[in-house]
Amino acid sequence: MEKKLFEKTISEKTIFNGRIIDLVLKDVELPDGKTSKREIINHPGAVAIIAVTESKKIVLINQFRKPLEKTIIEIPAGKLEKGEDPLKCAKRELEEETGYKPKEIEAVTSFYTSPGFADELVHIYFTDKLELGEVNRDDDEFLDVLEVTLEEAEALIEKQLIHDAKTVYAIQYLKLKGGLL
Amino acid sequence: MEKKLFEKTISEKTIFNGRIIDLVLKDVELPDGKTSKREIINHPGAVAIIAVTESKKIVLINQFRKPLEKTIIEIPAGKLEKGEDPLKCAKRELEEETGYKPKEIEAVTSFYTSPGFADELVHIYFTDKLELGEVNRDDDEFLDVLEVTLEEAEALIEKQLIHDAKTVYAIQYLKLKGGLL
Repeated sequence: MEKKLFEKTISEKTIFNGRIIDLVLKDVELPDGKTSKREIINHPGAVAIIAVTESKKIVLINQFRKPLEKTIIEIPAGKLEKGEDPLKCAKRELEEETGYKPKEIEAVTSFYTSPGFADELVHIYFTDKLELGEVNRDDDEFLDVLEVTLEEAEALIEKQLIHDAKTVYAIQYLKLKGGLL
Repeated sequence: MEKKLFEKTISEKTIFNGRIIDLVLKDVELPDGKTSKREIINHPGAVAIIAVTESKKIVLINQFRKPLEKTIIEIPAGKLEKGEDPLKCAKRELEEETGYKPKEIEAVTSFYTSPGFADELVHIYFTDKLELGEVNRDDDEFLDVLEVTLEEAEALIEKQLIHDAKTVYAIQYLKLKGGLL
């Protein structure tokens, strides 16, 4: 840790403890001794899966996103349960949302989505070894499953129907792999 | 909009109006008529800039991120002021944070960072036409500027020092462009 960039917590106050996120305000001491306020969202973290079918299509989800007041198309994803192993969560979420069960799955990378205000870390997995499993969605989860080619996915980015960080990352990942061959 | 996926707002309550984010709770009616609760963060949106120097290095920022309680290395970025044009914001933030002024800059893409709980949209720009401008940081902004090769950037991803969505996107973007040639 570079000491000269560190922000020490002087005091903190939890504003909200939710089902998914918590909001905490922190007063911090800046490196120059002055103070500032930080608005921080704590999130349990999430997984997302780049899943490719036998017929060389990417499995995507069309889902209404209340913060955006619209549907967008994303790779399958889900929040981590408290203490849950991300790999186990990835396998579970893929099957529950899409009905595809990965016979093999590999970790690709992980990244913070919004480090300026949130601690959400997303773990990305890849699989192209799928078998049929069983759909089992949450009570408040409504979505459509799509299977598209890489070219179709790129057209969805152009149309801003694919419009989120993990999914544009996934499309780039597949392109860097040399496509879906 | 697919009606069958839509979630209608029944009631909403603003929990917090912050300097950067707002937190709103919404009771929604699900497509099957049942109800659920959504925890929503409203954010002004942001810009981030993939900037390449004349000597073919990527300009990066090492910055303490309070939500993570550590420093990570990111492409230059900043929040939009209310009603601010993203392109103007990108030029301003790049110069203020790094001292580099873009002579030319192009829009690459935009993406939501966390559509499950936040409406933050990040606009990504690219420039490899830089001239020297003037550093002018916010009062509570402390950071180091780095210039690294693509290979060094990939090593930083391996070490989880580059560990956020927009920056791993940026590195993939440069690789897909064929590197920094």
